[in-house]
Amino acid sequence: MAKKRQILVIGHNTNGCTPEHEKVAYDVGVEIAKSDSVLITGGLGGVMTAAAHGAKDAGGLTVGIIPQADASEANEYCDIVIPTGMGLTRDFLNALTADGVIIVGGGSGTLSETCAAYMNKKPMVAIRNQNGPIEKYIDGFIDHRKNVKIIGVDDAKEAVKTILELITA
Amino acid sequence: MAKKRQILVIGHNTNGCTPEHEKVAYDVGVEIAKSDSVLITGGLGGVMTAAAHGAKDAGGLTVGIIPQADASEANEYCDIVIPTGMGLTRDFLNALTADGVIIVGGGSGTLSETCAAYMNKKPMVAIRNQNGPIEKYIDGFIDHRKNVKIIGVDDAKEAVKTILELITA
Amino acid sequence: MAKKRQILVIGHNTNGCTPEHEKVAYDVGVEIAKSDSVLITGGLGGVMTAAAHGAKDAGGLTVGIIPQADASEANEYCDIVIPTGMGLTRDFLNALTADGVIIVGGGSGTLSETCAAYMNKKPMVAIRNQNGPIEKYIDGFIDHRKNVKIIGVDDAKEAVKTILELITA
Amino acid sequence: MAKKRQILVIGHNTNGCTPEHEKVAYDVGVEIAKSDSVLITGGLGGVMTAAAHGAKDAGGLTVGIIPQADASEANEYCDIVIPTGMGLTRDFLNALTADGVIIVGGGSGTLSETCAAYMNKKPMVAIRNQNGPIEKYIDGFIDHRKNVKIIGVDDAKEAVKTILELITA
Repeated sequence: MAKKRQILVIGHNTNGCTPEHEKVAYDVGVEIAKSDSVLITGGLGGVMTAAAHGAKDAGGLTVGIIPQADASEANEYCDIVIPTGMGLTRDFLNALTADGVIIVGGGSGTLSETCAAYMNKKPMVAIRNQNGPIEKYIDGFIDHRKNVKIIGVDDAKEAVKTILELITA
Repeated sequence: MAKKRQILVIGHNTNGCTPEHEKVAYDVGVEIAKSDSVLITGGLGGVMTAAAHGAKDAGGLTVGIIPQADASEANEYCDIVIPTGMGLTRDFLNALTADGVIIVGGGSGTLSETCAAYMNKKPMVAIRNQNGPIEKYIDGFIDHRKNVKIIGVDDAKEAVKTILELITA
Repeated sequence: MAKKRQILVIGHNTNGCTPEHEKVAYDVGVEIAKSDSVLITGGLGGVMTAAAHGAKDAGGLTVGIIPQADASEANEYCDIVIPTGMGLTRDFLNALTADGVIIVGGGSGTLSETCAAYMNKKPMVAIRNQNGPIEKYIDGFIDHRKNVKIIGVDDAKEAVKTILELITA
Repeated sequence: MAKKRQILVIGHNTNGCTPEHEKVAYDVGVEIAKSDSVLITGGLGGVMTAAAHGAKDAGGLTVGIIPQADASEANEYCDIVIPTGMGLTRDFLNALTADGVIIVGGGSGTLSETCAAYMNKKPMVAIRNQNGPIEKYIDGFIDHRKNVKIIGVDDAKEAVKTILELITA
């Protein structure tokens, strides 16, 4: 099998993304590239841009799955763009495309992607203390089904190390 | 314009749905039919079946938007079935199809639909004390954007009355 | 089962639609309503508007499944609007929603819907002498799989009579 | 911009694919890799497998956008898998993901992808004498809109050379 490991990074788009979120997301991108995994993101701003920027700086490969129908709407750090033309419905495609998910803060869009990943039983880690609605689910489950626990981690290095362990487990 | 008012009811599928949830959902379906609105649901079990059952018993019109590609997978109370063949990604279509949303408990799927409705700024009410992840957002917002508040209500009658007011506002 | 028979009518959008196409489509809409079936269309202009207009004039029920995310983009003759927000990708949803398909001329969009219906083995009839790429497949198959023959008919009455027979067969 | 050129190759799935189709598709994959473009396919059998096989043998990068929700359903030559979970509706995503399209025979699925690419005005070339419904559109247009002509070519080398010219034009 040629298939590479595919790690999805989700979090705030431009609106709501702080320099701290960007710093963490950039570092996550670097670590994903170093692990020779492919970075998957939603291809837009904020955490998506920062993670892809980090991955490119570290020589990695990046995919952006965007809501628009036109590839030119993706950020400049996407090697491959999947322009879905489906609007935010593409959140579910992001989740399906992940072998594992790393969450860096985020709002309602991130939460919808987290739900989609949860329903599809994808391994997930979330970096602690990034605010947003995910915060309350860290080290817990989204619902009574207990499909998959969202594992809390403290930084980018631990996030990638942990998600790799969860994926191979 | 021929278009009728379209009210989406969301909540637990068979797994996690209690008789109390079903009772409330049935009553919501009845009230929606009485208000001459079309009931939209995800077309499967639990709250979706109960709401459609209520709407049909009260002479209403019901639409089920289902994950499967085959209309026969819908419950027996759907007048019109939209078989999306998109899996749970159809959660976003449910939200887009709503003029307003009524939430009766629910788990991760309901939460993903709620996020989709929130991102699309759809009016939403949630019936209190039904458990599940929605509980913590009642009378609040899903994220810092404050797109739309999820209004808490106490029963089926108040739910439909309130959502009609929000839709016309 | 509450589910009603759902008949999809496809053909030219505003661009390419002649008064003759509109006349035939209107008559098809009338006949569908008379047969107590639900009319499904793509909810936009040309053949879609004309068929829905006919169905409404004859007291029928109409559904428009549109590319846009906003229900107000549908034509004025849709009782129920499914705003997919998926762009033309919604062509596949139209096909899946059909118990049977009636083709009234049309171009590349109609051909994509016809392919989707063919792959999903939906019964199809096409009205003869309406021009467009479908013309060459009438009374034949789209490919070597011979999934379903596109039956040629001469007018609206025969179209609805034939599709009803094919659906019940 | 990091984005690489993305070329979609479409044609028969396992059913209907001859050794000749596979040979041509393999060669197309080789030429795409040599041109330093990314190969996009539907990730399944027949022409899709053969093109990806060729691209991998020539050191290229390959993406498979599949109907299923599970990445393991893709063929073994996909570096990156986008498991859409949308069934054949993913045909439209394939088209949107293309900067240009190369057609190697094919049936109704290929025709639906061709229509999607045509509606989105993607440059297209088709290799001559491969049979199937595309044959009749080579060096012509799918409909009266004349969005984009499907340029006929004689072999894999000419196909990739021509599509590269069309993409840069």
